[in-house]
Amino acid sequence: MTVSVLETHRCHGGEMRVFQHDSVALGLPARFSVFLPSAALEGEASPVLFLLAGLTCTHETFLQKSTIIAHAATHGLILVAPDTSPRGAGIEGEDESYDLGTGAGFYLDATRSPWSSHYRMGRYISEELPALLAEAPEVLPGLSSGPASGKGERAFGIMGHSMGGHGALVHALRNAGLWRSVSALAPIVHPSVVPWGEKAFSAYLGSDRKAWSRWDAVSLLNAGHRHPTAILIDQGTSDTFLSQELRPDLLEQAAADAGQALTLRYHDGYDHSYWFIQTVIADHVAHHAGILRGRA
Amino acid sequence: MTVSVLETHRCHGGEMRVFQHDSVALGLPARFSVFLPSAALEGEASPVLFLLAGLTCTHETFLQKSTIIAHAATHGLILVAPDTSPRGAGIEGEDESYDLGTGAGFYLDATRSPWSSHYRMGRYISEELPALLAEAPEVLPGLSSGPASGKGERAFGIMGHSMGGHGALVHALRNAGLWRSVSALAPIVHPSVVPWGEKAFSAYLGSDRKAWSRWDAVSLLNAGHRHPTAILIDQGTSDTFLSQELRPDLLEQAAADAGQALTLRYHDGYDHSYWFIQTVIADHVAHHAGILRGRA
Repeated sequence: MTVSVLETHRCHGGEMRVFQHDSVALGLPARFSVFLPSAALEGEASPVLFLLAGLTCTHETFLQKSTIIAHAATHGLILVAPDTSPRGAGIEGEDESYDLGTGAGFYLDATRSPWSSHYRMGRYISEELPALLAEAPEVLPGLSSGPASGKGERAFGIMGHSMGGHGALVHALRNAGLWRSVSALAPIVHPSVVPWGEKAFSAYLGSDRKAWSRWDAVSLLNAGHRHPTAILIDQGTSDTFLSQELRPDLLEQAAADAGQALTLRYHDGYDHSYWFIQTVIADHVAHHAGILRGRA
Repeated sequence: MTVSVLETHRCHGGEMRVFQHDSVALGLPARFSVFLPSAALEGEASPVLFLLAGLTCTHETFLQKSTIIAHAATHGLILVAPDTSPRGAGIEGEDESYDLGTGAGFYLDATRSPWSSHYRMGRYISEELPALLAEAPEVLPGLSSGPASGKGERAFGIMGHSMGGHGALVHALRNAGLWRSVSALAPIVHPSVVPWGEKAFSAYLGSDRKAWSRWDAVSLLNAGHRHPTAILIDQGTSDTFLSQELRPDLLEQAAADAGQALTLRYHDGYDHSYWFIQTVIADHVAHHAGILRGRA
């Protein structure tokens, strides 16, 4: 396993780094960004928060636009921002629309040809990248890969925006043992019933809607999946995708039915952009830090 | 005078807006970004801080990458981020290099053909944009255009990065009555003697180096210009442009000779990027707020 460092920048007492590696899950080179707070650089075991970005974004977007690093530095969290899809898979139509293919991997494992050859962001996020982080202390010092918070488990949290909010919710519900904290900003909560999700899931997973339910947060709740912590979600009321694509009300209903703890907050007049994200990001970092450090 | 709003986004309790207008100084349409804190939206007289970005940047860069909005919201400052050059002047060679022409206006008034037809960012920054802001309360509420801080003057401050740091220093020294506070991040301080400056000034101003001195911070200090407040400058020690292009030591010497108050801070291991800027930006906003609100 080779991981190369493409960039490194001092930032808020720590370091922001960009890595590239040959991903087994994707069958392609992949990039991800990392922020290491000062304590992690000094070797202290530090919790890790994954950041999943939305449609059209890259491994750079979340760290550049969300203003999250200042808050991660304060709380001593490592940040990991993967890409939003494989890059350069060479699949016909891959670059034709913003909501399918490049920049639109939906954090799932495609089962339908031709997408299934490379579009396996599901196992990339949930298996390959956490394992790589744990096994590469020479490039990522201070990862809490052994006992964390005295609980004998790795301390990973997961957060995402829009398509990435879908990814965070789905991965946390599918594997609450790995992802110990979860939050989302303006997430797609029920992709099976909205246009973005129907287009992507039809292409990646085929027409059998039963297969879709394993990658859909509302469906997972309905099928009995739970997360032991409260899910934090922030949503702007002037988000142009709110009523057609995001539908947080559907998650709220499913969580109520399931007994899943959920804090869903609406923000008057805010839209879908990173201008909204930066307004609420401090609360999300505090949410994850509290749980991952065992204070929540 | 027509100013149209291209974008508006709620952010940190205020609003981020992008405007376009037909600039008289530039003879072209020009864009600028603004952040209005909540108090300004409610009509309260609020100080204004100009943000001048560096080579290759646009009117979007500083607000997107510096994380400054959270701090401006805290201090109740209006932010104004102009572009770094005219756009679409149609001058031969304008788009051939990153350090001359588009994205590289150096915040001066070109006197040499063909640049002099449009490259007049000097008067755009110092005259047209402040006047436009004062005269357009319908698009920019809460501008302190009358008495501010009880001192009977407009309260404008100016800050910049790299080429924009040069712009901030030069404009503040040339017109300390307008620009009541000044700071810079990794600025070009003596363009007349470094490669970026020599290339740009030769093209924009011609070969007479006496004309250059009016757009050069060190030369202005040497010629007797002063700013009544302390200039704040932050500089990373691992900035690859430090020794050849930026040379803060030359400003430090000139300020000492001139009796100009200057706080120059070096930051170990930091580079020229916005990852550095976001690390120190809170101090810059506090610096300007203190002076512009009469507390410094």
